[in-house]
Amino acid sequence: MTRPAIDQLPASRIREVANAGLGRNDVLAFWFGESDEVTPQAVRDAAAASLQRGETFYSHNLGLAELREAIAGYTTALHSANGPVGPERIAVTSSGVSALMVAMQMLAGAGDEVVAVVPVWPNLTAQPAILGAEVVRVPLVPRDDGAWTLDLARVLSAVTDRTRVLLVNAPNNPTGWTLTRDEQQALLDHCRRTGTWIVADEVYERVWFGNGPAAPSFLDLAAPHDRLVVVHSFSKSFLMTGWRLGWMVLPPGQLDAAGKLLEFNTSCPPVFVQRGALAALAMADGFVPGLVQRLKAGRDRLHDGLARLPGVHAARPLGGMYAWFRVDGEDDSLALAKRLVRDHGLGLAPGVAFGPEGEGWLRWCFASQDLARLDAGVQRLADALRR
Amino acid sequence: MTRPAIDQLPASRIREVANAGLGRNDVLAFWFGESDEVTPQAVRDAAAASLQRGETFYSHNLGLAELREAIAGYTTALHSANGPVGPERIAVTSSGVSALMVAMQMLAGAGDEVVAVVPVWPNLTAQPAILGAEVVRVPLVPRDDGAWTLDLARVLSAVTDRTRVLLVNAPNNPTGWTLTRDEQQALLDHCRRTGTWIVADEVYERVWFGNGPAAPSFLDLAAPHDRLVVVHSFSKSFLMTGWRLGWMVLPPGQLDAAGKLLEFNTSCPPVFVQRGALAALAMADGFVPGLVQRLKAGRDRLHDGLARLPGVHAARPLGGMYAWFRVDGEDDSLALAKRLVRDHGLGLAPGVAFGPEGEGWLRWCFASQDLARLDAGVQRLADALRR
Repeated sequence: MTRPAIDQLPASRIREVANAGLGRNDVLAFWFGESDEVTPQAVRDAAAASLQRGETFYSHNLGLAELREAIAGYTTALHSANGPVGPERIAVTSSGVSALMVAMQMLAGAGDEVVAVVPVWPNLTAQPAILGAEVVRVPLVPRDDGAWTLDLARVLSAVTDRTRVLLVNAPNNPTGWTLTRDEQQALLDHCRRTGTWIVADEVYERVWFGNGPAAPSFLDLAAPHDRLVVVHSFSKSFLMTGWRLGWMVLPPGQLDAAGKLLEFNTSCPPVFVQRGALAALAMADGFVPGLVQRLKAGRDRLHDGLARLPGVHAARPLGGMYAWFRVDGEDDSLALAKRLVRDHGLGLAPGVAFGPEGEGWLRWCFASQDLARLDAGVQRLADALRR
Repeated sequence: MTRPAIDQLPASRIREVANAGLGRNDVLAFWFGESDEVTPQAVRDAAAASLQRGETFYSHNLGLAELREAIAGYTTALHSANGPVGPERIAVTSSGVSALMVAMQMLAGAGDEVVAVVPVWPNLTAQPAILGAEVVRVPLVPRDDGAWTLDLARVLSAVTDRTRVLLVNAPNNPTGWTLTRDEQQALLDHCRRTGTWIVADEVYERVWFGNGPAAPSFLDLAAPHDRLVVVHSFSKSFLMTGWRLGWMVLPPGQLDAAGKLLEFNTSCPPVFVQRGALAALAMADGFVPGLVQRLKAGRDRLHDGLARLPGVHAARPLGGMYAWFRVDGEDDSLALAKRLVRDHGLGLAPGVAFGPEGEGWLRWCFASQDLARLDAGVQRLADALRR
């Protein structure tokens, strides 16, 4: 009775795994992409103070003016190679996923072609499908050491002047793959020729273990009027997953279209949530590097553990919060993930949740304050694989 | 560069009026659909307590289980003619407008026909247009006394077996028109024959000055498995506009589709926002009737004032929070609204903002605690019309 396009959307395979573990109350769950740390107190206090002041009314579709200014300043501090990014390019959104939905509504409708680099978290490819667009999947390629790489020639041949949007999520959820500067330049040059929009999901740019404060961003290369939408979220860098707040960086001429679409999707995020975000940005310089150090400790602890397990192949990612690995002889990621949760109380995301290209792989979120919890998970995996 | 369907979406005419008043800091603004009362303290306290407890993580796509239970109980208390409405029919959404967008994504795509009863707030007809559906507008008809009525025969002839969705917002924003029980039954019977879904925006059901605690609802007539989606919001009945929280009542078989679409649109509302909603529902029996009394006082004060102005035609609405009126000799609602704000500091919404059917009319939100503020607005209108 619903539309076929909706019926065909995959239900969450992570949820399917979680259901397999129902009834166990001892599951160590690493399947979601979120830290187990609560949002910083100062951020929570700012939201509570806003509530106490009575900021409970509608606000501007594009977000509070002071928050757009603060985001512009934050963005410029990270990406000023092509001059400052001003607030006339910033729209605040009710989550990163809502920003991606609005970007897709702006750019692609029925019959339009969208090229997506995959595997990728499922929302990114579901959105154009909901809108009736045709999604062309271009797979990343796993190397023997477990790292995934871009087949640049294949992307370039897939993106033609019929392509409305190129969807790229880098640092990539789930694989940890990150675009190099040269790859970004090649994609940007090519999309300028074909007239294709780049929608860049860069929500993990600060969850970055390489040089500098952030992963390579298209904002470092693109001119303001390039056909580029960069999507961000407060979720990962500020421990604000549950707050549902994100933003988009747009060409200045697209702000009116974004404002209209935001009105018709969610109208505006709560003001008190935006006050929390202002507090987060105010403390970003001190907070984010510390968080990244904690995440790096989690990454290294988990990968050290995985490296000791025979038959497990995982490359240490430069960005993101996931270990992405395969196990010799295990080709059915959903079956393996169900067995792990049901028989061993270990909750991981099956690779097939991110598309058929992820089959045979598993995703493990290492954003845990408690390194012993990661150790206990590795022990459960070791027990499972021994049998 | 954006899609033509997006370029063609009307920009807000209310915003256009507001822009005409920029530079005046003495505008009495009645253009938005929101009360000037802050959210009740107990609701704000519940959210603040949740923040303090650290409830800052992702939650279920469909909303907290206890909130869905509470909404089901609240709904059943109002609409139990066909048995209780259980939580297996409830999905919590990140605003009423988001619920409407998700419902439309579920039901209508490119080339599908959607029939809408108009004039109506613009989001309702913009959403199917964004999705590429064809919107057929069926106008309500104004009577000489200023009340608007349904041309039932015209709706019934517009809805055919080619019609995927019938969109009805009653009590209606902006006209104050409300469906009668007989009209609801006729629409339901007809849509059962044509296989058409009814999407009923009933967010003003409690803002109701007629008999009983709520306006007539399709839930009083429909069976659980009827093709009916009823959309609600915490905004109007609980003074929670800025919280962005709503819900849908669905046939039980549609909950999985709704959950998928919620994941891909906004994923979930913040838990601390949902805790506020739980507090609101817990106090609903005491709170809502008092609010309705205050709104009724505003309605009567404003309509008493308008009735004294020569050439002004307005019918007292049974539901909603708007006076909807026309002025003899004033056919251009946008020009009049701009003149009112620019020259007289009176901020009203032009009727054309709600579609061409509203041309020549103005909307005035009477949800004001301060009746003297309404009086001052009426005085400004009187001054403007005297010239």
